[in-house]
Amino acid sequence: MKASVIGATGFAGAELLRLLEEHPEAELSFITSESSTGENIASMYPHLAKRIEKKLISMQDIDTIAASSDVIFIALPHGHAMKIGKKLRGSKTKIIDLGGDYRFKDYRVFEKWYGVKHEDPDADAVYGLTELFRSEVKKADLVANPGCYTTCSILALSSLLKYGLIKTDGIVVDAKSGTTGAGRGLKLGSLYCSVNENFHAYGISNHRHTPEIEQIYSQMAGKGVVIQFTPHLLPADRGILATCYAKLKDGVTDTQIENAFGNMYADEFFIRLLGKGACPEIKNVRTSNYVDIGWQTDKRTGRIIVMSCLDNLVKGAAGQAIQNMNVMFGMEETAGLRQLPIYP
Amino acid sequence: MKASVIGATGFAGAELLRLLEEHPEAELSFITSESSTGENIASMYPHLAKRIEKKLISMQDIDTIAASSDVIFIALPHGHAMKIGKKLRGSKTKIIDLGGDYRFKDYRVFEKWYGVKHEDPDADAVYGLTELFRSEVKKADLVANPGCYTTCSILALSSLLKYGLIKTDGIVVDAKSGTTGAGRGLKLGSLYCSVNENFHAYGISNHRHTPEIEQIYSQMAGKGVVIQFTPHLLPADRGILATCYAKLKDGVTDTQIENAFGNMYADEFFIRLLGKGACPEIKNVRTSNYVDIGWQTDKRTGRIIVMSCLDNLVKGAAGQAIQNMNVMFGMEETAGLRQLPIYP
Amino acid sequence: MKASVIGATGFAGAELLRLLEEHPEAELSFITSESSTGENIASMYPHLAKRIEKKLISMQDIDTIAASSDVIFIALPHGHAMKIGKKLRGSKTKIIDLGGDYRFKDYRVFEKWYGVKHEDPDADAVYGLTELFRSEVKKADLVANPGCYTTCSILALSSLLKYGLIKTDGIVVDAKSGTTGAGRGLKLGSLYCSVNENFHAYGISNHRHTPEIEQIYSQMAGKGVVIQFTPHLLPADRGILATCYAKLKDGVTDTQIENAFGNMYADEFFIRLLGKGACPEIKNVRTSNYVDIGWQTDKRTGRIIVMSCLDNLVKGAAGQAIQNMNVMFGMEETAGLRQLPIYP
Amino acid sequence: MKASVIGATGFAGAELLRLLEEHPEAELSFITSESSTGENIASMYPHLAKRIEKKLISMQDIDTIAASSDVIFIALPHGHAMKIGKKLRGSKTKIIDLGGDYRFKDYRVFEKWYGVKHEDPDADAVYGLTELFRSEVKKADLVANPGCYTTCSILALSSLLKYGLIKTDGIVVDAKSGTTGAGRGLKLGSLYCSVNENFHAYGISNHRHTPEIEQIYSQMAGKGVVIQFTPHLLPADRGILATCYAKLKDGVTDTQIENAFGNMYADEFFIRLLGKGACPEIKNVRTSNYVDIGWQTDKRTGRIIVMSCLDNLVKGAAGQAIQNMNVMFGMEETAGLRQLPIYP
Repeated sequence: MKASVIGATGFAGAELLRLLEEHPEAELSFITSESSTGENIASMYPHLAKRIEKKLISMQDIDTIAASSDVIFIALPHGHAMKIGKKLRGSKTKIIDLGGDYRFKDYRVFEKWYGVKHEDPDADAVYGLTELFRSEVKKADLVANPGCYTTCSILALSSLLKYGLIKTDGIVVDAKSGTTGAGRGLKLGSLYCSVNENFHAYGISNHRHTPEIEQIYSQMAGKGVVIQFTPHLLPADRGILATCYAKLKDGVTDTQIENAFGNMYADEFFIRLLGKGACPEIKNVRTSNYVDIGWQTDKRTGRIIVMSCLDNLVKGAAGQAIQNMNVMFGMEETAGLRQLPIYP
Repeated sequence: MKASVIGATGFAGAELLRLLEEHPEAELSFITSESSTGENIASMYPHLAKRIEKKLISMQDIDTIAASSDVIFIALPHGHAMKIGKKLRGSKTKIIDLGGDYRFKDYRVFEKWYGVKHEDPDADAVYGLTELFRSEVKKADLVANPGCYTTCSILALSSLLKYGLIKTDGIVVDAKSGTTGAGRGLKLGSLYCSVNENFHAYGISNHRHTPEIEQIYSQMAGKGVVIQFTPHLLPADRGILATCYAKLKDGVTDTQIENAFGNMYADEFFIRLLGKGACPEIKNVRTSNYVDIGWQTDKRTGRIIVMSCLDNLVKGAAGQAIQNMNVMFGMEETAGLRQLPIYP
Repeated sequence: MKASVIGATGFAGAELLRLLEEHPEAELSFITSESSTGENIASMYPHLAKRIEKKLISMQDIDTIAASSDVIFIALPHGHAMKIGKKLRGSKTKIIDLGGDYRFKDYRVFEKWYGVKHEDPDADAVYGLTELFRSEVKKADLVANPGCYTTCSILALSSLLKYGLIKTDGIVVDAKSGTTGAGRGLKLGSLYCSVNENFHAYGISNHRHTPEIEQIYSQMAGKGVVIQFTPHLLPADRGILATCYAKLKDGVTDTQIENAFGNMYADEFFIRLLGKGACPEIKNVRTSNYVDIGWQTDKRTGRIIVMSCLDNLVKGAAGQAIQNMNVMFGMEETAGLRQLPIYP
Repeated sequence: MKASVIGATGFAGAELLRLLEEHPEAELSFITSESSTGENIASMYPHLAKRIEKKLISMQDIDTIAASSDVIFIALPHGHAMKIGKKLRGSKTKIIDLGGDYRFKDYRVFEKWYGVKHEDPDADAVYGLTELFRSEVKKADLVANPGCYTTCSILALSSLLKYGLIKTDGIVVDAKSGTTGAGRGLKLGSLYCSVNENFHAYGISNHRHTPEIEQIYSQMAGKGVVIQFTPHLLPADRGILATCYAKLKDGVTDTQIENAFGNMYADEFFIRLLGKGACPEIKNVRTSNYVDIGWQTDKRTGRIIVMSCLDNLVKGAAGQAIQNMNVMFGMEETAGLRQLPIYP
């Protein structure tokens, strides 16, 4: 198992390096960065010192990279992966893209929300939310790794939608993410003094994870679902909590709800069902590939509130990518991902 | 203006001390604590050293306290103020209660949500959300200072409800508060290592601020309003952000929305309307009595999302209490409260 | 009292604006920024909205600015103030520089540690550590406001040096500062994810505040003092704590120590002596102009450990600058600076 | 390899559980808690859910526990381990104590600094700073795991003392620790609102890690060493940084220093020498068993400043305990401990 990471110097890229280093069967082949070509990754990320002392190369010669890689992870902003995917079509190298390029069944949704033309609209990509699409991932050559907010939101409500326990209109997903979600770019809003002791929403009514969530919600419900999605920035490094509001259909009981979650997730290693009344906490999943889910109903309003949380860099990005790799290559799905959350 | 603080050692009590010390016309009379009677407040709160070096007394002899006080602030858990209010009925001392006892027009709502019998159900208390009920506060002898989440949520949607721009069903208020909101009690959940790098919801579907918000929303709308209210705990000392979701009535325009906010708040010193598309940030109001409000609409869902934020210990507690005092005693409403937010 | 702020968009500049707005006698004349000329300061710092809505101008026409200013505060990196100071020599406008240009009695010390030529070496500047040099400040036209680490370190040991209670060799000052000390520039090391949950030293053995501390220590001791100074970056917005180690001279008693501190500071409004065994905490002075000082002796080692703390943006920068302005213009020294620390 | 944890509900105990779960050869036998006997550890620490669902028992029947354990970890406050150690003398079960009871060669040092009588003064314990005493640990039945500050401070200066490059008088260790170091007890000083945005020293001149550091420094130097040790509380969960000041002997060169560090640590897996001029950062070692060391000299003062950092719960407690277990039982020393630091 030789793996290369395209775009290794962002937070998701560096997290891939960490997880690949801890993977029992993977070996790191190439790592790339256009802005830091020639540098040792450990000089940029000293936490990797003595373990991943590897030079960053350019991704320009992607064919050579592919030739020495069983799998390529792409951890770049949208717009790059579709070029690489197109170029490597037909090669033996499998691709897992952590960006948005291949996440949409209909490339026009991508073009509308991302504002760029899709250069590889006919690609046969599988949406890699592993728990929901494991059998497709198993056969895939190109996996679109889901977004962080997306994974969290989809896992929260998919079972209720699939089993028809909630109404498909009126869904509100109020999500909160740690600051690694904003990336490593030098922005005023990412300074310590801007984030610390602060909290605010952003991207209201137009965040790009909205159509991605809707796509899977719709697939689960068997009909079009439109949601209200609002992200917020938390003064914390890692973690996403999604508070999801939905109207219960008439007469739905707690047992039905419990069963819906159980049917879908009881055998899933990485999903922990905390049950009714439990409020999952980001710190209980942080640094791990786990997703914790709790819920509560409100008789006064007829709603169910489902809360789910995960680490945006692990299950929300690099961890799920490794999970997909494991499935694609027939390895133990949890290989390299069994580390417990670190608390406190 | 002689003021006493009953329950001076909690966070809201200490904040009252700070603000009274900075008030141009108020003088501190008595401060009380049952658990720390006899101690100097500055030994418990060294930030007050050399400025408020005052001994804490017991509140047992409330008549003596009242005799030397033009106003008494009560910063105790619910259940105490109704005893004091009843006892002091008819005295010349005005009362501002920061707890829940007198916040409900119908004492049975209090009894239902707080689970205790009301001992002073006939009191003539005014709900002290100053911007909305200024004229009543002016004449009041007993003011029920609103809750922190409540103030934030009410100010966000009241104008839209009053001017009939949003539907009264389907309102969701997803609120997030800094940790001072959890008080100074020794609880595992309040430890640094429990809160830091963490985030979670609590009190889902049963938080006591729910009926308080509904009471004023209903008053504004002229009909009963039931809401979904969910509080969360932020890894920050101070600040509340409420993200409020409501369905717009058909055909409502941005101008109508702008006007509704403007009509209600344009002349309010402590309310800053950030307008459409703006996302207010906790850090811009922290430590001050300001409330920042922004909003966005979503054509896809027909909703308006209104966000408001304030400092839970200032406008959400002690600051609004001082504001009410100023109004009750005919002083300049902003006296002692003009300090700018401190940033960063 | 008309005041202008040259370099109003950095953290110290913005803090000057806040404090000037709260000053009873000062009025803001001009505010400048070269990179944001023409912008409203409140659009960059929304916490100032509705209070300081003022356009930033260029500092190029400094004569016009001076003509409408009784005092000019310069909050720029070193190298600028000496140009302005030279140009305005002889004008009626007083200058308070928050940078390093005028802090050294011997301009060659500046040139050595800052690596640039001094363009105004003959200026008659007063070192504005108000508590120590109040009478000079009173008569000054040009005040060099001390550095943040400097103020904290000097106030810790000056009394012991002046009264000859400690040895002048072997002094170690281990200092820790909140992240506002690193400024508002876009640096990788200032990102939230770089600072949060982190801690490290920097500038070891060559930080520019070293000669500044030594200059005053030497003046107090009446002989040359060389110190070891090490700054560290704290995961907090504001606050500096200096842990200062010095060898006690033989036979020095606690009473002598107590008296040395008392003689120097007992009448100082902004200095709070916590006494033997007390460990001052940053959070008790944060957002205020106070300095808290505590100390402990160690019989095993013969040392005294003095700890002092202050808010780096207030007493360590803008607050002390206002304090100096008050003294220079014969106003009440505490005017505009009496706000209590905000806790928590 | 069956392992039991006595005192499993403190932070160090829970960290032992996490690391044992990830250990390839260890199996958890018993876990104890006197205050929570009968509870499932995962209900107290939900981050362990689905992985360590084990009931806490009392440690009263220690013989039964020992009978099913190859090794017992004791993670209790001082005073308990010496009772257990005495009782289990001669049993086949090896003991690793994370508390202070067995750390001193001379039990009278323990009695003086801890203020209690030693009940097992003749025990044959080995001080488990693995890198320095590996061969003794290999043969030990009873290992005293070093303190967190201690490990950090000892590793910083031991090589310089051993090779005689620094003077033994005048050493100052200024150390800073994350809040997990204060434990999980309900104390006002451990509340989020007490620690966040705060910083202060504590235990000045009398912290119990002082004699522990001195013991090993003296052993390395071959003569008695007395140090100045000052701990501080950082607003962070994990991590210790020790800034260590020492006078260089005359004529010592950078090469000698480099060699001293290299001779002692170049082959150590868990020690990363960052070299001259480098300032190690807590966040680069956090959650791992690594120790990062950097240093700088100051010609003006003749000093070397050595900085070292580690995760207080891993290399400073549970990680080093596992490392010692590995050595004691002839396993790969890094088994279960190779996880990379998690960044950010």
